[in-house]
Amino acid sequence: MDNILSHKSIRRFKDTPVPTDVLEKMLTAATRASTTGNMQVYSIIVTTNKVLLQQLASCHFNQPASTTAPMHITFCVDVNRFSKWCELRGGERSYDNFLWFINGSIDALLASQNLALTAEAQGLGICYLGTAAYSARRISEILEIPKGVIPIAVVVAGYPDEKPPLTDRLPLEAVVHYDKYHQYTTEDIENIWRERESSDETVNLLKINELPNLARIFTEKRYPKKDNEDVSARYIEFLKEQGFL
Amino acid sequence: MDNILSHKSIRRFKDTPVPTDVLEKMLTAATRASTTGNMQVYSIIVTTNKVLLQQLASCHFNQPASTTAPMHITFCVDVNRFSKWCELRGGERSYDNFLWFINGSIDALLASQNLALTAEAQGLGICYLGTAAYSARRISEILEIPKGVIPIAVVVAGYPDEKPPLTDRLPLEAVVHYDKYHQYTTEDIENIWRERESSDETVNLLKINELPNLARIFTEKRYPKKDNEDVSARYIEFLKEQGFL
Repeated sequence: MDNILSHKSIRRFKDTPVPTDVLEKMLTAATRASTTGNMQVYSIIVTTNKVLLQQLASCHFNQPASTTAPMHITFCVDVNRFSKWCELRGGERSYDNFLWFINGSIDALLASQNLALTAEAQGLGICYLGTAAYSARRISEILEIPKGVIPIAVVVAGYPDEKPPLTDRLPLEAVVHYDKYHQYTTEDIENIWRERESSDETVNLLKINELPNLARIFTEKRYPKKDNEDVSARYIEFLKEQGFL
Repeated sequence: MDNILSHKSIRRFKDTPVPTDVLEKMLTAATRASTTGNMQVYSIIVTTNKVLLQQLASCHFNQPASTTAPMHITFCVDVNRFSKWCELRGGERSYDNFLWFINGSIDALLASQNLALTAEAQGLGICYLGTAAYSARRISEILEIPKGVIPIAVVVAGYPDEKPPLTDRLPLEAVVHYDKYHQYTTEDIENIWRERESSDETVNLLKINELPNLARIFTEKRYPKKDNEDVSARYIEFLKEQGFL
């Protein structure tokens, strides 16, 4: 539990490779997560080959987390394996649809978090690369991912070469609702973000970005609407190609 | 880590309520998970009201896990809160699209696994209800979930009233690939499922279901194609209504 509370994303890694026994514990932990109907409709691709790592890093804009990590772990929704088994046994292909993209995503992501925590418990650092959705098709080409499979999350892992501070979070009451969803009033919204908006870090960010507030750094710099819509369209197209839509 | 390896889904719970301090640790742990751009585009709804619990259980076909649990925890993708903040600060609404359904799902599911593990570390049992996607719209009506929000996973929690054995998993090499995805040969598929197909449990299931093999229990009884396609169509329709497509 202390492990869970002290999680920090690591974005600079040492060159040291991850030992086989450490990796095996991570992978075993991943497979113990809950999985829809005990079907395990996911695959985990562990990449350590230097040439492939370089290609994968370019899918993540060569951010340091992606270039310095000795290992990229790609979590995929996978109905390919299960469907092959069903077909071999005379069953109908039943899982090429959106429901099983959702179920496979749940499976893959629960597995990924077990792996991440088990990596950290063994002294490794990890980072989820938020750019996985942006580059899903290119990642799939590099890793020779077939139809019926789609990458949903990329975790990089290795021994940390930095000691970042714990990141802040919104107050608990910002994300938790009791019994039913409570709609947020303007006052709620003001209270939720007050601390973060007045922090030194934010004041500094506003100066650098020449913008009047933190929200607009998100909507104009980090995740602007047009980019989000472009990536959404490309991702939906790729879901169709992979057989999920 | 032992905690992760010994996870078993619990489907019968005692009447005992979950103490407030135990719940608070679970929720705090949830919020420490990695989250896209530190935006926390998810919400967690903790339901303990008896009338609501009864309505929610009906969304899960009144399976014992759903009827006996003193607590349903609904994890939602939520761009509603973040968008309200952006609009209040003069930013453009940018997150009503499929990419942010994906990002929110990742956020919500990593948080859910932290919560599940922290529940188990404190002596509780949990179960992910696989029926959440089937009943996403009805759950949303009961919990008054607004546009911009969609339930992605439901975890029930409470003190266990059963001691199930550890569930089997496919061999590690079935789900793990090194460097690139390796396509499965017929021999691979035979090897992967051999042990499970020959188990006493399977032999028993085939007798009850009057079917020639385990795969066809999945394709004909548990998750037949027509049901999967119906649920997919309904889910996509609901994603559109909630503003993600």
